[in-house]
Amino acid sequence: MQDHQRWPERVRLFEVGPRDGLQHEPSTLPVATRLEFIRRLAEAGLRDIEIGSFVHPRWVPQMADTDDLVARIPSLTGVRLWALVPNLTGFARAVAAGATNLCFLVSASETHSRKNLNRPIAEAIAEVERLAEAAARRGAPWRGYVSVAFGCPYEGAVDFGAVLTLARRMLDLGARQVSLGDTTGMGNPRQVGEAARQALDEFGPDKLALHFHDTRGLGMTNAYVALEEGVNSFDTSAGGIGGCPYAPGAAGNLSTEDLVQLLRSLGVECAVDFDKLISVARWLDAEAKVRVHSRSHRYACSQATAGAH
Amino acid sequence: MQDHQRWPERVRLFEVGPRDGLQHEPSTLPVATRLEFIRRLAEAGLRDIEIGSFVHPRWVPQMADTDDLVARIPSLTGVRLWALVPNLTGFARAVAAGATNLCFLVSASETHSRKNLNRPIAEAIAEVERLAEAAARRGAPWRGYVSVAFGCPYEGAVDFGAVLTLARRMLDLGARQVSLGDTTGMGNPRQVGEAARQALDEFGPDKLALHFHDTRGLGMTNAYVALEEGVNSFDTSAGGIGGCPYAPGAAGNLSTEDLVQLLRSLGVECAVDFDKLISVARWLDAEAKVRVHSRSHRYACSQATAGAH
Repeated sequence: MQDHQRWPERVRLFEVGPRDGLQHEPSTLPVATRLEFIRRLAEAGLRDIEIGSFVHPRWVPQMADTDDLVARIPSLTGVRLWALVPNLTGFARAVAAGATNLCFLVSASETHSRKNLNRPIAEAIAEVERLAEAAARRGAPWRGYVSVAFGCPYEGAVDFGAVLTLARRMLDLGARQVSLGDTTGMGNPRQVGEAARQALDEFGPDKLALHFHDTRGLGMTNAYVALEEGVNSFDTSAGGIGGCPYAPGAAGNLSTEDLVQLLRSLGVECAVDFDKLISVARWLDAEAKVRVHSRSHRYACSQATAGAH
Repeated sequence: MQDHQRWPERVRLFEVGPRDGLQHEPSTLPVATRLEFIRRLAEAGLRDIEIGSFVHPRWVPQMADTDDLVARIPSLTGVRLWALVPNLTGFARAVAAGATNLCFLVSASETHSRKNLNRPIAEAIAEVERLAEAAARRGAPWRGYVSVAFGCPYEGAVDFGAVLTLARRMLDLGARQVSLGDTTGMGNPRQVGEAARQALDEFGPDKLALHFHDTRGLGMTNAYVALEEGVNSFDTSAGGIGGCPYAPGAAGNLSTEDLVQLLRSLGVECAVDFDKLISVARWLDAEAKVRVHSRSHRYACSQATAGAH
């Protein structure tokens, strides 16, 4: 017997669709469409939105015009806009474009770090040290990611103790929050429950976010288990867009609207308008031509066809 | 803090794809294709398979040739084949065709009962009494379903006490097991956790199965919560086929392969071959032209494209 009334009262959502979602899509959206996506997300009530990445366009062409995007973005009251910065070159671009809230990244497996960041973990951490220093000089808030925290597609199991060490290092360097990412959807509820307990013990709920992918259908259940443990901050992507880069066609990030559906059903507040989120997913699908993976969007579409009950 | 090591050691799967899956598909499969589907499910290790329904073909044309199907089905060692029988007319057909294991059905809401079974609940129960008597005379084992046990698309919330009373009545009448169905995917984890506790208190794990739909993306999480409470028997559908009848295009039953993925990740045995299940889903999609909804099938396809890691 368990007491299922122990969810947090309120959950914070960090929207990654315009970055982690779009960067894995086969097509590259025009800046105007990316801007419209962000505007609609803000209108749905999302207060933290990762809008793009200052990675080299050779690696991620989908994010090529992030400079232009940041320069053109309108003021969105009460919304924090975040940009991923993989290195000092990206940092210089971000500063030039006027980005204010930044995300820095390390990977929990050597192979993934070399393939994804083009450097071993130790060098990635050294780069984050330099980035943190540069951010501190400008007073720019930043957030830290640890990728493949729940399993690596190259190496398999990942030592979660090492994940916690990397996260602790980023917090010590000044990260406002660390987000532990199940980059390719390898995590399972048993593992996530235990990991969430350890991470909460170590950092407390304010400093911790979890980031799930629904690649194998376990993203929602992983989020639920983390909620049960007391995690109150999740990265999600409108429409569940952004399949795994090494698995074309696979389902992507945990969908914002599906998670909001879960939160509503549990009576957990998240200050996001579900109907507007469904509209965003519909817009993504119909106008932006980005494949939407969320169940609740598909259900809403079918209801519109069948008539409401 | 919770103890997440309390899942059952072993879970029994009751495969409903050839009935609850196919009956909601837009197209009607030829008997030979239905037979091949069943053969493949048995080969994947499923030991309880609901193969069809003796409902009037005017209502469910997809199940029209179930007589023929049952007559032609080969002997599958160790596999129990089940057929849904909605009334005495269906019972006579089932007996004539040679069906041995039967499923009888009631609905937990008056409106759904009238629309789905064409009679109020009291009359549906009276029919099950007659069916149970007829089954007892022939020594035919039967299983009871309670539909819309977690919410009704017409009436909204459903009194779970009334669900338990209906289930108890079916067990008293001789049902080997009762399956409580979230017919249109309205259940949420909070509700399911509480309901599972109550149902287990009332009937114990041997007599109880739960049947989830993934309409709103909560099917897997609902199953997980039930597992945590100690439920060890689930109805699932290969490929997650069988959308909600009143919501065309919506995701269908909880997918067998997705649930098996979850069970494997938790170390729970279910005696089903995951890779063969993926082959069944692939066959459904490619050969039988039935739309497959499962995440793990899509992931497996994408891995086949991208090369394994």
